[in-house]
This record gives sequence, structure tokens and C-alpha cells, in this order.
Amino acid sequence: MIKVQMKDRFWNKYMEVVRKEVIPYQWNALNDRLPDTEPSHAIENLKIAAGEARGEFYGMVFQDSDVAKWLEAVAFSLENHPDQALEETADELIDLLGRAQQEDGYLNTYYTIKAPEQRWTNVRDNHELYCAGHLIEAAVAYYQVTGKRKFLDIMCNYTDYIDTVFGNEEGKIRGYPGHQEIELALVKLFDVTGNERYLELSKYFIDQRGQNPHYFDMEREKRGDTNPFFYHHGYEYHQAHEPVRDQEKAVGHSVRAIYMYAAMADLALKTNDDSLRKACERLWDNLTKKQMYITAGVGSSEFGEAFSFDYDLPNDTAYTETCASIALVFWAKRMLDLETNSKYADVMERALYNGTISGMDLDGKKFFYVNPLEVWPKACTRHDKRHVKPVRQPWFTCACCPPNLARLISSIGHYMYSKDDNQLFVHLYAGNQTDVELNGQMVNIIQTTEYPWDEKVTLSINPETADSFTIALRIPGWCKQPELWVNGERIHVGIVSKDGYAYIQRTWEKGDHIELLFPMPVRRMKSHPSVRVNAGKVALQRGPVVYCLEEVDNGKNLSNIYLPKASRFDVTFDKDLLEGVVTIKGDAVRIDPNAWEDNLYASNDDEQILVEIKAIPYYAWCNRSPGEMLVWINEV
Amino acid sequence: MIKVQMKDRFWNKYMEVVRKEVIPYQWNALNDRLPDTEPSHAIENLKIAAGEARGEFYGMVFQDSDVAKWLEAVAFSLENHPDQALEETADELIDLLGRAQQEDGYLNTYYTIKAPEQRWTNVRDNHELYCAGHLIEAAVAYYQVTGKRKFLDIMCNYTDYIDTVFGNEEGKIRGYPGHQEIELALVKLFDVTGNERYLELSKYFIDQRGQNPHYFDMEREKRGDTNPFFYHHGYEYHQAHEPVRDQEKAVGHSVRAIYMYAAMADLALKTNDDSLRKACERLWDNLTKKQMYITAGVGSSEFGEAFSFDYDLPNDTAYTETCASIALVFWAKRMLDLETNSKYADVMERALYNGTISGMDLDGKKFFYVNPLEVWPKACTRHDKRHVKPVRQPWFTCACCPPNLARLISSIGHYMYSKDDNQLFVHLYAGNQTDVELNGQMVNIIQTTEYPWDEKVTLSINPETADSFTIALRIPGWCKQPELWVNGERIHVGIVSKDGYAYIQRTWEKGDHIELLFPMPVRRMKSHPSVRVNAGKVALQRGPVVYCLEEVDNGKNLSNIYLPKASRFDVTFDKDLLEGVVTIKGDAVRIDPNAWEDNLYASNDDEQILVEIKAIPYYAWCNRSPGEMLVWINEV
Repeated sequence: MIKVQMKDRFWNKYMEVVRKEVIPYQWNALNDRLPDTEPSHAIENLKIAAGEARGEFYGMVFQDSDVAKWLEAVAFSLENHPDQALEETADELIDLLGRAQQEDGYLNTYYTIKAPEQRWTNVRDNHELYCAGHLIEAAVAYYQVTGKRKFLDIMCNYTDYIDTVFGNEEGKIRGYPGHQEIELALVKLFDVTGNERYLELSKYFIDQRGQNPHYFDMEREKRGDTNPFFYHHGYEYHQAHEPVRDQEKAVGHSVRAIYMYAAMADLALKTNDDSLRKACERLWDNLTKKQMYITAGVGSSEFGEAFSFDYDLPNDTAYTETCASIALVFWAKRMLDLETNSKYADVMERALYNGTISGMDLDGKKFFYVNPLEVWPKACTRHDKRHVKPVRQPWFTCACCPPNLARLISSIGHYMYSKDDNQLFVHLYAGNQTDVELNGQMVNIIQTTEYPWDEKVTLSINPETADSFTIALRIPGWCKQPELWVNGERIHVGIVSKDGYAYIQRTWEKGDHIELLFPMPVRRMKSHPSVRVNAGKVALQRGPVVYCLEEVDNGKNLSNIYLPKASRFDVTFDKDLLEGVVTIKGDAVRIDPNAWEDNLYASNDDEQILVEIKAIPYYAWCNRSPGEMLVWINEV
Repeated sequence: MIKVQMKDRFWNKYMEVVRKEVIPYQWNALNDRLPDTEPSHAIENLKIAAGEARGEFYGMVFQDSDVAKWLEAVAFSLENHPDQALEETADELIDLLGRAQQEDGYLNTYYTIKAPEQRWTNVRDNHELYCAGHLIEAAVAYYQVTGKRKFLDIMCNYTDYIDTVFGNEEGKIRGYPGHQEIELALVKLFDVTGNERYLELSKYFIDQRGQNPHYFDMEREKRGDTNPFFYHHGYEYHQAHEPVRDQEKAVGHSVRAIYMYAAMADLALKTNDDSLRKACERLWDNLTKKQMYITAGVGSSEFGEAFSFDYDLPNDTAYTETCASIALVFWAKRMLDLETNSKYADVMERALYNGTISGMDLDGKKFFYVNPLEVWPKACTRHDKRHVKPVRQPWFTCACCPPNLARLISSIGHYMYSKDDNQLFVHLYAGNQTDVELNGQMVNIIQTTEYPWDEKVTLSINPETADSFTIALRIPGWCKQPELWVNGERIHVGIVSKDGYAYIQRTWEKGDHIELLFPMPVRRMKSHPSVRVNAGKVALQRGPVVYCLEEVDNGKNLSNIYLPKASRFDVTFDKDLLEGVVTIKGDAVRIDPNAWEDNLYASNDDEQILVEIKAIPYYAWCNRSPGEMLVWINEV
């Protein structure tokens, strides 16, 4: 049991934005109260399914999942900030979900309204199990936060029914979802109910995936659908091209992939399945060492919202869906549960401070679905870059990312720590007050820091009575010279570290304190030489935060900025800029375009102009005047 | 009258390839005799239209144009190399064309076979006038070379009929072609027939284009077609978005655009139309100074096979259709006719030695439709690069480029010179023997050179009797220190030059000779700073030839090659390589990938390895082992 109360300048601001802006805005969206926006119809769909309104289903086939993600975000928000009115609204919505549920437990408005007789005839494309998964996740969260069982019961009821539909037994469907999600949800449902059937059903979906004969083909034939599958005529898109334990590389739709990897990590832990664990480790290595942007954005191809191949990481056509980086946080946390190794927490942190929150503007009113690392707004009119929006959008027809961010941010406290009987693992640094059970007693932990801007972190350890346990502190991979003190006594980090965590085992007494210093010089990051597009370029990173140049600070044509190898950087915390960020300034050169005649090509020596550049955190780009943005800067 | 007999090691080799390989191969293609290839059906379509075979039309709506381009290439080939059998084959085909022609002169197999009542109902999309244009061009060439009138008469007949269909008079169609081509063909037809109606019809199509109400809209309405036009819902695609004289920038489908610009230049000259001339100059400047690759490839967007916008010149997703660079040669020659200025000949030469012939392999058996400046073969599996082929293809369903190259190469002699009464303009340097009428007498010119590999050019000037006239010699824009001698006497180029041509006026006697020296150091070309993708990169150019790196010479991952500013180059003519090319070698560095741990991102100093790079002419890439190719090289 770990109970985290966030008290962090950085994250609490985001949590407040989600609570005050995103959740109410999304509630209005779900209820079709937004002007100038495609209606969501999600609540109306539920009412129609419940027989309480008349009309047709409207929206994406997975429209129900927006309701689920909203409820999950509400649950997490209530955990941080009780709000009776909001809870009542949620309760009413849960009641409506109950009334929309069919006699046999089935709960999906698309099929209930449109084609009740066609349930489960197209699990490849039609997201029934995906929606069920999100509803299960929401029900678990709502139960955990409020203690109310109604939603949980609805979803247990639905899951029990699903369990009668899928399986190897005679008369059951030997299928699995086209969009993975229910697999990890079922593990959560198992966690709170203890019902082994849920764990087994999750394992069934994972084990069955990619087996021959291929279920999607059988299903397709049964439907009389003769079209080849759109994605290169194969099922890499769904990671269903081969059994999951044989998969070597991250392929296909990146959100589907990572949700599945997260479930695989869960199952590897809970069923002690070494082959699944090995598959997870292999896929993790491939994804994070060959296919991940420096922002922890993943999915470099717009076609299929998908992974591409090793080292193919174009910056200006990247897909890097907000949801995919969010999924990476989910997976990273589960890998940490499998193995305490900072390589997982490093990626989790990279995603949290960069590629996830870049998906939302600072006031929570606009969102990026796609998070490119280089934007030339005019080039976004090109047909092959039309997915790259140069400014955040108020909402999307496929509104997956905003509610996904809402639930991530509202549950940020869940990613700070993990524990076993007598060890507390500190994965992330952010202000919080936490109560955790260690050695059978509750220990209060107060973490104080101005991370990610400041280098210092303090933890105050307060057991009720003095006791021996271990505090394992992650040493961030980006930090080359960490320093550590316990009650003022310097401890050599190298000596106590294993796999990137410094283990402090001692008898702790109330008031003991740990101090950490993580020096944060500006680092010039380079890409592996095989990343062709980044050759000769550097990205600036300070602490966990990746920086970018914006036109508003640096003028047009950011590609014409060259950072000399020798130039030094000034770092300033600017409290008035972008709600308080550290900026990086440094000397650079540009080629003087005025010294060019109007030729397109010439062999003259360039005239260089000295300029000062100013870089801001990537996540905060496009919160002022729209314009160009660049992460990878030419070096000379 | 200029009669050029090419005697050039470089071009005659290509002409022989076209004569021996491309023309026979294409004849087999037109007759559906190629195994493992989509049938062309072009000859069969003619037979069906002539009532001599039964069956359906098959192929692209513009399939007839393949026949036309083949006949035009044959004509030019016969000019260089008489061939009775080939001429008989052509005559038979022309007879068939005659029999496929309808009573009223109409000649288009698609409509004749499929929908005779629907003629001229969709001139926007269905290429009737485009096919007519290519047939006219072929007929003119065949008449000029063979003196035979039959084909010319067929096409005059067809054109006379077209002239009854289009125009502002009551009952006529106020339209113009969706794919420009007939405009320039009509000028040629006027040139050989002297019939002013043809010139006026060309002018009509040009003047009418983009006028309001928009003809394509009226036509669309009449057809009952309610779809918005696919290209951003506008007619920039056809350069029909506004009257041609108002157009400021090259937009839309690049081949259509440039064929039109060529016709505009023709009309500006022949009708002494200053507003058309100004439009041509403006469009030339925009295209060549803002939208042209260093290879003279044009059209940076696959969507619409189109121009993009100023300075948007991505190397790896370029469309740069072979036909577009060919069109640029056509246009450049006409601009030279309007104004003797080397800026036009420089682009013509750049296209001839780079972006056109890159479209064909050295043995004339395989072709590129798309000519990128950077190829990572694996990345060509990406959906957004699927138009970029890493190797040349045997044939295309849309087979426009191979016959277009065939006709260009076979007529290369036409681009060498132009003249007025007493001035001969030498635009290009290549071995040839030429007879030209100056001051009323025939003058024999013998040009001798190993251009583009060697720096020296000799012209021997042989009038029958001594006479005063001017020889104007283009000084290539790439040459900074040209030297010039007449009969051994050094002449200061700067003093006699105007607009890039050195004017030598004197009394010429048989045996007079001009010697030119165009020093060809390797030049490190840079792009205008606004070309974002080329920032920090150089392309190597020697003389008119642009170079590239290939994997077969330089290993994988060409982006990981960095050319130090100080490195020097060795230049060697290798007669055994790629049928004889000058190669460039130089010192460079690479980042040692083995010195990288398996991280994707790091801030370590790189380990540099010294390497020697070898560059080959761009046009000759992919004639050995397939692999990566790169024009723009990182500079350090």
C-alpha cells in the first residue's frame, strides 16, 4: 500500500489544469455541449442503448472508450482532490452505464444500437474488447478511489460474459482483440477482485495472438470480407503476425503494441512466465534503443500510426502520437515491477517530461495528437505532412489523446514509487507526501524538490518507530555525477548502486533525511550514427528535459542555426515564461541569407552572423506565437 | 537552317542506346511483346479504332501518346542514323494511324473505341488534347526528317477539326486542355506549315486558361460531376487557377506547368507578346531560383506530381519526375530563343547532364520515373516514400518517361546551337559537325571536345568563302575562369561577353579555330540558406556534372560521412567505370558506430574515423549494386 499525495510545483499545476479544465471540458464534449465542434454523442449513445433516448449511434466505433477514459481520469482526480459534485456526476454516469448494459452483461453502444446480432463478428477492427478494457480500467480506478462497487460490478458482470465468449473450449471464439487494451485491464481487475479467471482470460488473449490458423482470417472469411488487410497485407499492424513470444521488434500500430507489451509485463510477473519476460525485455530494447525519439515519442510512421524500422526516425514527419508515449509510461512502470532497473525509469521519466505532456498546451485547452520534433508550418501543407499540425487543436474526432493525458496526469503519483515488504523504490523525483507500509508499519515520506528545474532533492523518512528497511533511489541515467547524503553524511553513490538504484539500508528513525544532488549541466545529445536524419546535429537536454528552438525566440528558418562545438550555455529559471521554465541561451552562428545573391546554389564561402539562441523545454513549445520548432540543431 | 551531326563520345553513346535498345524495346512494348509486363495495348487500340481488330480499349486514357513519342523518337533517330527497316515500320504505323482516324479528322483511340459520343466532355482529365499534341509533335518531326507528308497531313486534318471544336465563337467549346502539351505542338505545326490558324489556336488555349467562369467547372457541371477537384480543391494542379499572365509562381503538376511555359515562350516570341514574355521570365526565376533541385530535378511533391513551395526541396521524398526535367530542357531552349542569356543554357545543361539522363540506366533497359537526391533503400518501404524506387524499373504502367527520354536524347543535336542571320550561338559543348547558314552561305562548324569530363573545347569554323559573322559562345555559369583563344590569340572573355555569351565578331575564314578552356575544379556547392534540408551540407559538382555518393563505393549509412572543409579532391577519368566517368575522391571522416554503446542517444564525444570517399556522377547512380545514394553531404 502506497498512498502518494503530490505536492509538486511542476505536476500539481498540470493536475489542476486537468481538474479544472480538461475534465469539465471533456464532460461538455461527451454531452455535446461544445460549440463549433463535431458532437461526441458518447453520452447520447449510452442513453439510446439504455432505451432512454431515440436515435442512431454516432461517432467512432470506440466512442464508449471516451466515457471510460473520462471516468478513469475523474477517479484519479478525486483521489487527489475530493469533489462531491464531480463524484455525483460520475455516479450518475455509472448508473447510466448500468442501464445501457444488456441482460447478458454486454456493454457496447455501437453494437447494441446498430447491430446487436453482429457482436464479436469483427474483433479485428471494431474495438469491442478495447472499449471493454477501458471501462474495466475505469471501474477499477473508481472502486479503488471511492470504494464504491457499482461500476466494478457492472464490469465484472461484463467480463464474466466475455469470458463465456472467448476461449479454446468448444463453441467459444478463439479470437483476441484487434486493438489490445483489455489484456492489461483484466490484470487490474484480477488485482482488485482476486478472480483468477480474469488473469487467465488476459493470458488467453496474449497466448492466442498470432497463432495459426490466424483468427483474423477466419473471422474475415466468416464475414465474407475478401479485402486484403490494408497494412502491407499483413497483421504486423496488430502485432498479430506471429505469437507474441516470438516477436523480436516493435512493429505496427504503436499504441496497440505498447498496451500489449504492458500486459505482457504484467503477466510475466503475475504468472512468473519467463518466456514472456524475455519477450518484454527484447521488445523494450528494440523500441528504446532503435525506435524511440529523444522525446520518448514513438511511432515514426503516419501510415498505420505505426513503428517503422530500426533507426528510421524522421523528425518532421514523425507520428509520435501522444497516446503512444503515454502507453510507454504504462509499460515502463510494469517493467520496473518486473526488474528494478533505472533503464525503465529513465524512459518513463523521458516520456513524462517530454513526449506526453507536449500533447497538451499549458492551459489544458488544446492538444497535439502528433508530436513532431521539427515543424516548418508551411511544410505542413504538404500532403505527406498533413498529419503534422503546427498548432494544437481544440479536440479531435478521434479523441483518444486528451482523455488519455488526463488520466495519466491525474495518476502521476502512482509512478513515483514502488515497494516490496521492506524496500521502497524511488523512481521519480517530484514533491510529494507519501505513506507507505514497510515491514508492517506505515512510514511517512516527504519528498521536496524543484525538479526538473533544480538539481536538489530531499527526502524525509518518518517511520512511526525506528526500523530497518531499504530506500532504493534511482540515479537518473542522464546524471553523470550524482551526490547523496544521509543525515548529512556523504555516501558514495557508486558503492551502493545496482542497476541504477542506490540502495540505502539502515535503521531509519523519524526525521532522517536523504539529500540528493543531480547536477544538471546542459548536455549536447547526439543520436546513434545510424539515425541518418540527425547526423551532424545535437539536441539540448538538461536533466530529464529535452529542449527545442522556437521561431518566436529565434526567428524564422531554425535550420540555418549552427551551434559551434565550443559554445557555452547560460541557464536561467524564468518564472514568468511558460509558467516557469529553465531556458538555455548560447552563442551560435547563422549563414547570412542577405549575403547570398538570389541563386539557389553557389560555391561561395558563407558569411556567418553571430547570434544568441534561446531554447525552451520541448513540452512547452507552441504556447506562444505559432511558428517553426526544432529539436535537432546543426552543430559546427 | 542548322544541321547538326553529333560526334560526341558522351551523347552518341546515349543515342546509340536509344537506337539499339530503347526504340526496339518500346516497339515491343507497344505491341505487347514483352514478357512479365503489363500489356501496353497501344497498337492494338489503334487497330480496334481502325476496325481491324476486335476488343476493348485498354491502357491509360493517354495511351496513344506512347505511340506518338515513339514515332517522334524514331524520327530523330533516323535523322542521326538512317535505317530503312525502322522507317518502314514507322510508315506502317503511320498508315495505321491514318486508318484509325475518323471521318471528321478525330484521332483518339480511347474515345473512338469506348465512348465516341463523349468526345470533349472531360478535357480536364482525359488527355484528348494532350495526345493530339504529342501526335502533332511526332508528325512534325517525321516530316522534317523524312520529308514525308502523310503523318503531317493526318495531323493537320485532326488539328483543323480541333480548330472547329474550340474557340470563343458560338457553338464552340471555350475550353483548354487539362494536360498542356498541344500548345507547344501547335507552334511547331505552324512552323512547318505556315498556317496561322495553328498559332492562333495555341494562343487561344493559352489565353483562355484560368479565365472566369472557369471552364473546368462548367464542363464538370455539364457532366454532372459533383466531386471537388482532388488537388486541394483547386486548379493550381493544371495551372488553370488564374490567367497565365497573372501567374507568379510555378505551381501544380510540374510537367503540365513546364510544357505550358514552353508554349508561352514560343508564343511570346512568335506573336511578340511582351506580357507573355514577362510571365515566362517571372516563372523561370521562381522555378530555377526557388524550386529546382541541383540536378535540375523539379517537382518536390509526390502528391499531384507537383511543385511544392519556395525552398521546399526535400531530397528523400522528391518526386523530380524524369519528364519534368526533360520539359525543363524544352522550355530552356525556348527561353534562349527569346533572349540569349546563359542563365537559360546553364539550366538546360544542368538538366541534360543530371536530372534527365538519371532516368535511364546506362544500357537503356531500366528507368526511373522519380529521381530522388537521397535514397536509403529500406526507407523506400515507408508509405510516404513508396514513390521513390531504389532501383530503376523495366517499364511503367504510366510509361511517359522512357519515350520522352528517347526523343530528347535522339534530338540532342537540336539543343547545341541557335542562330539568327549572321550570328551563331553556341549553347552547349559536345562533339559535332554542323552546317549552318550564316549571311546566306553555309558554314561548316566542327566542335571537338571530351566534355563534360575535359575542360577543353575546340571549334573549327569553315565558311565556304571568308565572311564576317559572329560566333557567340556560352560561358558556363559554373566556370569562374574561362579562357578563350581565336586562332591561337588569347581573348579576354570578360571584355567580349554579354549575358554569359562571349561574342566573337570577325571575318572568318576556312580553318579558323576557337579554343575554349573551362577549368573544372571540384566545387562544393551550397544551397540557399532557406533550403532547410541542405543546411550544413555540400554537393560536389565538377563542370556541369553533379556528383553523388553510392553505397557500393562508400559503404552503408552515407549520412554518417562528413566532409571536412579543408579536404582536397583527386579527380580521375576512369574509362572502365560506368562507361567512362570522372570520379572524385577525397578525405572525409565518419563517426565510428562501434565506438557507440548500444544507446540511441548519448552526449559522449564521437570517435572519428578517417575515410576516403569516392563520388560518381549522379546521373550514373544505381548502375552497379543497388544501395544507398546521397547528393548532399554533411560538411564539418
